[in-house]
Amino acid sequence: MSRYEEIELTNMCMICDGKGNVLVQNKKNHPTWCGWNFPGGHVERGEFVTPSVIREMKEETGLTIDSPRLCGIKEFHKSKDGKRYIVFLYVANHFSGELKSSSEGEVFWHPLSELTHSDKLIDGFREMLPVFISDEINEVYYERCEDELKTIFC
Amino acid sequence: MSRYEEIELTNMCMICDGKGNVLVQNKKNHPTWCGWNFPGGHVERGEFVTPSVIREMKEETGLTIDSPRLCGIKEFHKSKDGKRYIVFLYVANHFSGELKSSSEGEVFWHPLSELTHSDKLIDGFREMLPVFISDEINEVYYERCEDELKTIFC
Repeated sequence: MSRYEEIELTNMCMICDGKGNVLVQNKKNHPTWCGWNFPGGHVERGEFVTPSVIREMKEETGLTIDSPRLCGIKEFHKSKDGKRYIVFLYVANHFSGELKSSSEGEVFWHPLSELTHSDKLIDGFREMLPVFISDEINEVYYERCEDELKTIFC
Repeated sequence: MSRYEEIELTNMCMICDGKGNVLVQNKKNHPTWCGWNFPGGHVERGEFVTPSVIREMKEETGLTIDSPRLCGIKEFHKSKDGKRYIVFLYVANHFSGELKSSSEGEVFWHPLSELTHSDKLIDGFREMLPVFISDEINEVYYERCEDELKTIFC
């Protein structure tokens, strides 16, 4: 039996300025899925995962991140066809370059402590924050229990 | 363009006893690919990644690991068809139950400090150890440079 399955891979990174602020992107290039999140994007075919997050940060923030740390993953299985979607989540405490927004959305520094309470977060982003923030949490995924979609942290 | 690609997902875990020893498996269920490594296996279709490593550890070691920590990944792209293979690497410092080997191979405690120098390691395992051991290393992958396969840590 083939062990391969069709998977969509993406990345996202919390860039920290060392003063309690993180780099937020106000995503605006999608008709309905808009709001605040961290910058990120797709892992391209043939590209390795950690290099992909370094490339995406350069494209979407202008910054060259150094030694990003993999802090966990977000996963979901699409209800239609069961296909898997994985987001590799990184934290970067070191970077160089000048901040520059992209067509994906404006990027700006914001206090991390105020982010969890914000009503501007993009759909699905709030439950990713514990993975970025807590060393005890590696993963967030959604599990269907009867008709409800439960968010599981582990 | 479809963002899906065919990927094989596996897991591997370094279980630590808190006294400097780690749980090693002497893999013997393959005709040529034999030797010491850490226990692990496939992420099954429809199964989430962190639950998969908890299941595999139970099956291959008898132990129920608690709060495994994702410490990084190993990746390679097969030279034949470019298909991606990802190993999710975990560390577990907490567990319960009784040690029990499986048909995959005998499991036993071994000093971590002696492991890197061992000549019994299975092919491809030695270069995974830095990801398990160092907080600074998230990923190991192979990159083809002309005719040589280079091991990259990041």
